[in-house]
Amino acid sequence: MYSEEFDKIVHYRRSNRSFDPEIEVKDEIIEKSIKRAILAPNSSNMQLWEFYWIKSPEELARLTPLCLSQSAAKTAKHMVVFVTRKDLWRSRAKWNYEIIKKTIKGKPSKLQKRGLAYYKKLIPLVYMNDPLYILSSIRKSISFFGGIRKPFYRLGGKSEQRIVVHKSCALAAQNFMLSISAEGFHSCPMEGFDKRRVKKMLKLPYGAEINMIVSVGKGTEKGIWGPRYRVPYEEVVFKR
Amino acid sequence: MYSEEFDKIVHYRRSNRSFDPEIEVKDEIIEKSIKRAILAPNSSNMQLWEFYWIKSPEELARLTPLCLSQSAAKTAKHMVVFVTRKDLWRSRAKWNYEIIKKTIKGKPSKLQKRGLAYYKKLIPLVYMNDPLYILSSIRKSISFFGGIRKPFYRLGGKSEQRIVVHKSCALAAQNFMLSISAEGFHSCPMEGFDKRRVKKMLKLPYGAEINMIVSVGKGTEKGIWGPRYRVPYEEVVFKR
Repeated sequence: MYSEEFDKIVHYRRSNRSFDPEIEVKDEIIEKSIKRAILAPNSSNMQLWEFYWIKSPEELARLTPLCLSQSAAKTAKHMVVFVTRKDLWRSRAKWNYEIIKKTIKGKPSKLQKRGLAYYKKLIPLVYMNDPLYILSSIRKSISFFGGIRKPFYRLGGKSEQRIVVHKSCALAAQNFMLSISAEGFHSCPMEGFDKRRVKKMLKLPYGAEINMIVSVGKGTEKGIWGPRYRVPYEEVVFKR
Repeated sequence: MYSEEFDKIVHYRRSNRSFDPEIEVKDEIIEKSIKRAILAPNSSNMQLWEFYWIKSPEELARLTPLCLSQSAAKTAKHMVVFVTRKDLWRSRAKWNYEIIKKTIKGKPSKLQKRGLAYYKKLIPLVYMNDPLYILSSIRKSISFFGGIRKPFYRLGGKSEQRIVVHKSCALAAQNFMLSISAEGFHSCPMEGFDKRRVKKMLKLPYGAEINMIVSVGKGTEKGIWGPRYRVPYEEVVFKR
């Protein structure tokens, strides 16, 4: 279908660490790319993510030192902070539940019934927590005993919940970066930042976490540190 | 550049839960897509990932019940298990270190010196662990005191290490799924599986973790459960 074009998009995407100060990136490109990011698959369609698009010179100047003043931040025309919102699970579960409910005309189908039960019963089991993490222990016990004799979904604790939302958010981030590449611009995903101060700057609540910060601009040659090195295919791919 | 084509690729990608039993997906499409997955950006170029490509009918039949026999697994022509390998950090750090060393002719540049120090000193500080997690506490204390007066990178514990490798692996998974879409086929990312049994089947060591399992085939109408619902743009995007 679009094999060659996609190949070019993937190869054009390199982390660029120094953007051209003269070349602007139009707002519509960022907006389009965030909209594509949102179309990424995500765990149970819970969409526990938010996107903080930083573009005014004042706000960029505030965020740059929190990214430890790395050049990818200093020279960026836009930065998008990808944020996970595990804490919003109740409202998102409700949102999904209501959508299914609206589709029901008359007697619910088997799929609709399963959908309703999924958001009403299973999702709370996965996301609910208590201050002492007693629920985490209960979940792990259920999984252990349930899984002794047959395959069983392993419910996790707080770390697993965090991993789930960060994974989904990263899927969106990759859509975003490829989109920037498809539009002929460059990006750099950053993990080197002061997460506490970024959260404070964005006035994020305790349960929110920064997934990554992606800076955008027109890349320069100097922004590419060298060739792209990867461990050989045979060492990381195993076929059965 | 390829704005329209990318838009079509992103929109064509829907999680399909029932693949056409009559239509095969050629090996070269999977191979190409894994190669594109590997080109995703990843934390410090550590590439702490592996890809288990399951394609023989026998192995697919073994993996399907471990994915709780969901239809996306039952009808798949291929499944790729995305695996994180936090435990390989020493060898990957060494691999990166050696690559930088090889590029040095004569006196190392500032960038080269920084690169060598990065993989020799900073990476162990981030990835090293001990059975009692004393290092995690030390790291958190360093970050706390270092960050009192100025922005500081917050070193984490075991959970943060796991999140970092899962995020990078998810970036690769999204490249893979978009690639499958660009080739005119369909995929479904799965998190509902018995991770212990999958690890056992793949003979993975303790430190490895399953990131997600992506099944591939030619999608059917029945495999799409309904329209794609997303929380409105204005509720998840904040512009400054």
